[in-house]
Amino acid sequence: MLARNTHLITSRNHPSIRRLRSLHRREDRDRAGLALIEGLRLLSQAVERRVRFETLVLAPELLTSPYGRKLAHRLRRSGARCLEVSRDVFHSLALCDDPQGIAAVVPQEWQPIQRADPRDGLCWIALGALQSPGNLGTIIRTAEAVGAGGIVFLDPAADPYDASTIRASMGALFGLGYVRATLSEFAAWKRRTGCLVVGTSPSAEEDYHAVPYPEPCVLMMGWERRGLSPQETAQCDRLVRIPMVGRGDSLNLAIATGVMLYEVFNQRRAGAPLPNLNRVLASD
Amino acid sequence: MLARNTHLITSRNHPSIRRLRSLHRREDRDRAGLALIEGLRLLSQAVERRVRFETLVLAPELLTSPYGRKLAHRLRRSGARCLEVSRDVFHSLALCDDPQGIAAVVPQEWQPIQRADPRDGLCWIALGALQSPGNLGTIIRTAEAVGAGGIVFLDPAADPYDASTIRASMGALFGLGYVRATLSEFAAWKRRTGCLVVGTSPSAEEDYHAVPYPEPCVLMMGWERRGLSPQETAQCDRLVRIPMVGRGDSLNLAIATGVMLYEVFNQRRAGAPLPNLNRVLASD
Repeated sequence: MLARNTHLITSRNHPSIRRLRSLHRREDRDRAGLALIEGLRLLSQAVERRVRFETLVLAPELLTSPYGRKLAHRLRRSGARCLEVSRDVFHSLALCDDPQGIAAVVPQEWQPIQRADPRDGLCWIALGALQSPGNLGTIIRTAEAVGAGGIVFLDPAADPYDASTIRASMGALFGLGYVRATLSEFAAWKRRTGCLVVGTSPSAEEDYHAVPYPEPCVLMMGWERRGLSPQETAQCDRLVRIPMVGRGDSLNLAIATGVMLYEVFNQRRAGAPLPNLNRVLASD
Repeated sequence: MLARNTHLITSRNHPSIRRLRSLHRREDRDRAGLALIEGLRLLSQAVERRVRFETLVLAPELLTSPYGRKLAHRLRRSGARCLEVSRDVFHSLALCDDPQGIAAVVPQEWQPIQRADPRDGLCWIALGALQSPGNLGTIIRTAEAVGAGGIVFLDPAADPYDASTIRASMGALFGLGYVRATLSEFAAWKRRTGCLVVGTSPSAEEDYHAVPYPEPCVLMMGWERRGLSPQETAQCDRLVRIPMVGRGDSLNLAIATGVMLYEVFNQRRAGAPLPNLNRVLASD
């Protein structure tokens, strides 16, 4: 498995390994503009999406499946810089207990808001404060599933490149566009692009299922229990409510976002079908 | 705060405290038929639902909010057996870092399948293998939100009384009926009650949004990546697909269940409105 001229790294303290491990920390990750991704599923999704690999990390002792070896071979041939490491070193990088022996450093992909087009994809999502990285990953996974264009993060604390988020996104990470914006940048973008911003609120009068979501449309979703802030609410052209008949006062944020996304998706499918919808429905 | 005749327990090794802690273990919890619930939100939901408290656990040093003290007072007066414990002892029981100083032992509520009525509530859910306790809690929360009747667990490993599930359910735990059943018990129940069992599968031909969900209806949901087993699939009268246009091969199970539940909910709302729907929509 070892390619010629490749040196197997066996020390956890090797500078290259320390650099890789530093990417688990938000600050270091952001400073480098990089992220560490791990596992066959995620790497093959990254390949499909033509993500550029900054560094490939292989642990030949762990990478035993024929599929994994083939993927590693293909990535090596594409010219990615490769580090081969011992099983022990790989375990020091991996976040799961049973790692597959393949990881990669990839660039974080952020768009300036000026270049984000709310007409790209089914709709966009604007996210206020978030409670959990796992929830964000689930939102990314659902958004990719319905062909949403991307996410505007209004809260700087949210990070799609967090390891728990990446894990929960199940490889969907690379299928969306990501933008960071202040609320005033968001407001300027909204005016310029003419998108309709629909926010959800338990106290809204309109039922989410009874209003149209014309293109280009942005769903503004906020932290479940606190909801949207007054400033976020002020950016909404329309406020809708997802009705509930139980005694709870809110839905999980990822569930609320999923319900909203499928509403938009179903309305678009019922109207003029999108070209990619036809394609997928036909090939299913 | 200390009531007369109440002895403050200050040792983590007190037999009553050890018994409470044992409820964090599935085996002990099931043997006792009890569960430990914690926090003001959950306890007040339990009170609203008229759950019988086997034991109330209070840490006066931690229970400082007027609302919490009032709730404790009310529960004491209702005759619940009460243990008062020190801050340190409460921390040894609590699963969160910042506990509110109130917990309770409640009975697990299971119905025999023979007594479960699929006409109770919007619909029922039958769950195959589950990946995470948190997902189950989110499913319970969403199911309660749309007024579902309950959940039939086909996999004995699933446990609504797991602490992570309870936490993710955000108090909705007490709003549903719970049944454990083997697949053959489920099959007999289905025949006897005449309910329509609708399963989801990525390879199904019918679109979930294009089929009716007449009462009584049971949604059969299976573990996200593996899907329903052949035996579970054989119990379905209808298989539907939640369409996706991305490159992922599945949705998170809680999201898929949420999308299905809101589809049933929206169809029923569009037809003859349920009495409690009218009530809630009017009082919103």
